[in-house]
Amino acid sequence: MLTFDEAVARLVAAGRRESVNLASKPIPVIQALGRVLAKPLESTVDVPPRANSAMDGYAFRYADAVAANFQLPISQRIPAGRAPQLLQAGTAARIFTGAELPEGADTVAMQEDCQATADAVTIDASQVQQGDNVRPQGQDITAGTVILEAGKKLRPQELGLLFSIGEAMVDVYRPLRVAILSTGDELVEPGRALAPGQIYNSNRATLHGMLAAWGMEIVDLGIVRDEPDIIEAVLLAAAAQADMVVTSGGVSVGEEDHVKAVVEKLGNLEFWKIAIKPGKPLAFGHIGTTPFMGLPGNPASTFVTACLFLRPFLLSMQGMEQVLPRSSRERSRFSKSAVKRQEFLRARRTATGVETFANQSSGVLSSACWGDGLVVQFAGQSIESGDGVEFFPYAEFF
Amino acid sequence: MLTFDEAVARLVAAGRRESVNLASKPIPVIQALGRVLAKPLESTVDVPPRANSAMDGYAFRYADAVAANFQLPISQRIPAGRAPQLLQAGTAARIFTGAELPEGADTVAMQEDCQATADAVTIDASQVQQGDNVRPQGQDITAGTVILEAGKKLRPQELGLLFSIGEAMVDVYRPLRVAILSTGDELVEPGRALAPGQIYNSNRATLHGMLAAWGMEIVDLGIVRDEPDIIEAVLLAAAAQADMVVTSGGVSVGEEDHVKAVVEKLGNLEFWKIAIKPGKPLAFGHIGTTPFMGLPGNPASTFVTACLFLRPFLLSMQGMEQVLPRSSRERSRFSKSAVKRQEFLRARRTATGVETFANQSSGVLSSACWGDGLVVQFAGQSIESGDGVEFFPYAEFF
Repeated sequence: MLTFDEAVARLVAAGRRESVNLASKPIPVIQALGRVLAKPLESTVDVPPRANSAMDGYAFRYADAVAANFQLPISQRIPAGRAPQLLQAGTAARIFTGAELPEGADTVAMQEDCQATADAVTIDASQVQQGDNVRPQGQDITAGTVILEAGKKLRPQELGLLFSIGEAMVDVYRPLRVAILSTGDELVEPGRALAPGQIYNSNRATLHGMLAAWGMEIVDLGIVRDEPDIIEAVLLAAAAQADMVVTSGGVSVGEEDHVKAVVEKLGNLEFWKIAIKPGKPLAFGHIGTTPFMGLPGNPASTFVTACLFLRPFLLSMQGMEQVLPRSSRERSRFSKSAVKRQEFLRARRTATGVETFANQSSGVLSSACWGDGLVVQFAGQSIESGDGVEFFPYAEFF
Repeated sequence: MLTFDEAVARLVAAGRRESVNLASKPIPVIQALGRVLAKPLESTVDVPPRANSAMDGYAFRYADAVAANFQLPISQRIPAGRAPQLLQAGTAARIFTGAELPEGADTVAMQEDCQATADAVTIDASQVQQGDNVRPQGQDITAGTVILEAGKKLRPQELGLLFSIGEAMVDVYRPLRVAILSTGDELVEPGRALAPGQIYNSNRATLHGMLAAWGMEIVDLGIVRDEPDIIEAVLLAAAAQADMVVTSGGVSVGEEDHVKAVVEKLGNLEFWKIAIKPGKPLAFGHIGTTPFMGLPGNPASTFVTACLFLRPFLLSMQGMEQVLPRSSRERSRFSKSAVKRQEFLRARRTATGVETFANQSSGVLSSACWGDGLVVQFAGQSIESGDGVEFFPYAEFF
C-alpha cells in the first residue's frame, strides 16, 4: 500500500509531465480571478511612481521648517492628480492625500497639526518628524522586480497588484477542461423518481462544484450505463475533448465494473491502494494520452479523494508546487484509538476545539456538510481529547 | 473610536435590516455553487433509500450462516441498480457494491473472504460479523430531517447532498448587485501611460476580484472624477441599479473629497473611526435607501477593510450569521511591541510559524500578495517570537 504522501508525490510528478503543453493567453486582469499566471511578471514601473502624500496637510522641507520656527508661507496647492511645481525654498505646499510630493519637500504635516491662513501655515513642531506622511517612490514596488512568479494562482489582491503596475492584461493558462462521469447502473439523476435498487447520483454535483471552484471547464457526461461499448464510446469522446477524465465509482475489482477493462484497452491503468480512510482505492492512468483518474464511488470517499488527490494533480498540471493546503493545529475535543490507515475525519471547529461527525462512514455525505474541514489521524496515532491535531479547513481546498 | 468588534456588530445589524426584501428563486443545483440557501431544506427521502451493500460479496442472514456452518447455496445475483428478490431462507445472494440488500439479509461478506462456485459459497466465519458491510436505510439522511438551514452558503459538498436527496433545483437568493467606483483625480486605469501626479487604480481590480469570489454581480463604474455634479449623477445611477454602493478613497475630511457631501445630500452618512490599522476611517450610510460603504483608498487598507467590513455586511444582507471566518492559532516568528489600535498584519505561515511582511504601510499592496493571511495584534498586546497569535487565512475570506 502507498502512504498518503507517496500517492500525492506520484500525482504531482504525473501532473508535471502533463503540464508541458498547456497553452496560455493574455486576458483582462479583471477576468483573471483564480487563473494561473503563465509567466513571471516583472514590473516596469515604480509603485508609487513618485513620492506622494499619505495625508491631507502641508508639505515642506523639514530643515526649512526648523529654520523658520515652523512658520512657512504657502507657495502652491497640490490636489491629487495635479503635477506639482518645484517647492520654493523656505515655503510649504498645501497638499492632499495621494498627491505627488513637490521636489524639494521631504515631510508632510497633517492638517490637524497645523494652523493655516490663506497664505501661511504654522505647524505644531511637536507632532511632526522629518519624513512623516510621505510614501516614498517605489515603496511598494521598484521597477525591474519580479512581483509574481509563474504558476501563481491569482487572488483578488494579485489582480489589484497587476493594476497597480499598469497591467490591464495578464498572461494566464487557459482553464483545464475536465470531463466527469459516473458509472453504476444503480444511479439516477435527481428530479426523477427512484425505482427499487436505485439511488441518486450525488457525486456529479459534488465534483461539478469542486471543479467550478477550481476554475476548471467542465465536460459533464453525467451517468454512463455500465456496458463496455457505451463506456468505451463515452471515454473516447471525453478524452478527445478534455485535458483529463475523472470517473467516480465503477473502477474496482468487481465483476460488474467495466471501466477498468475499457481504460486498460484504450491506454493504461494502475490501481493504487493508498493507506488512508476513506478512499483507499484510486485508479490512475491514461485514455490514449489523456490522464484518467478513477475516484471511489462512495459520496464521502469521492469528496475526500477529490480534495486530496484530484486537486493536487490538477494544480500540478498547471505548474503549481504547493498542491496541498497548509494545515492548522487545533485542539481535539474527541478521543479515538489508534488506526492502521491514516484517516481524514470530517470535522468542525468550535470555540473550544475540533469535533468529529459521529458517522464517518464513506457513504455519509452529511459528514462533509456538517463541518468545515478534515482532521488527520495518522496511522498508529491515538487521539485523546485535548491533544493537538492537524486540521485541513475546507476553505483551503475550494 | 469604535472597537473592531463593535464595528462588525453594527454592520451585521445594518445588513440584517437590508435583507428583508431579498428575492429568491429556484435554480439548478449544478449552478448553485456559492449561492445562499433561501429556505430550510427538508429531505423527503431516506438516504440511502434502502439498505445496500458496501462491498462486492455475498449477502445473507447471519443466523442462517451460523446454522449452516457458513456454507450457503446461492439463490440470486443482485447487481447494482437491480431490484432484489426476497432472500430465500438459508441461502446467500451474490451482491455488488451499491446494490440493494435483499429483504431477509442482514450481513454482507466481502468476496475476498469467500470461496464460491456457481451455486454455493463458503464464507470465512472469522472475517465477518453480523451487520458487516451493510449501509442501513437512512444511514446518511432520514426523511423529514432538515438537512440544510436557510442562510447556508452552498459548497461543493452541499450540492452533492442536494443531489443525494433527489433535488435538481434549489431555492437560493439572487446574487447581490454591488456597484463599485473609485474617486480620486490622481487615478488612471491600467493600460494607459501615467502623467505626472497620477497613479494606477489598483482598488478597482482588488474589489472586482473579491466581489466575484463572493458570488456578487458587479456594477463596475470605474474611476469617477472628483466633481460634485459627476459624483452625484454616478452615485444616483449606481444606487438605482445596485443593492449596495461601495467606493474606495475620497471619503474623508479633505477639502478635495466631494463624495461625502454628495452622499449626505442624497441620503445619510456616518463616519466611523475604528480602532484598527490599517483602515481606521470607514464611511457608512445610504444613497436614498441603498446602503453605501466608503472604504479607505490606500490599497492595503481597501483590501483589509473589504475583508473585515464589506464582506460581513454583504453576508449579513444575505441572512448569514457567521460573517467572520474562524481564526486559527499560530506560532509567531516575529516580535512586535504593543500598539494602541488593533492591527491586522499581512503575514504568511511557514513550517515553523507566522512571519509578517516587512512593510506594513497601508500603501503597500505587495504585503497582501506576499502571504496567506492576517495576523491580529490586539491593542496593548506585545508579541514575542514564539507566542501564540490569532491568524485569519485569506482562503477563509474568498
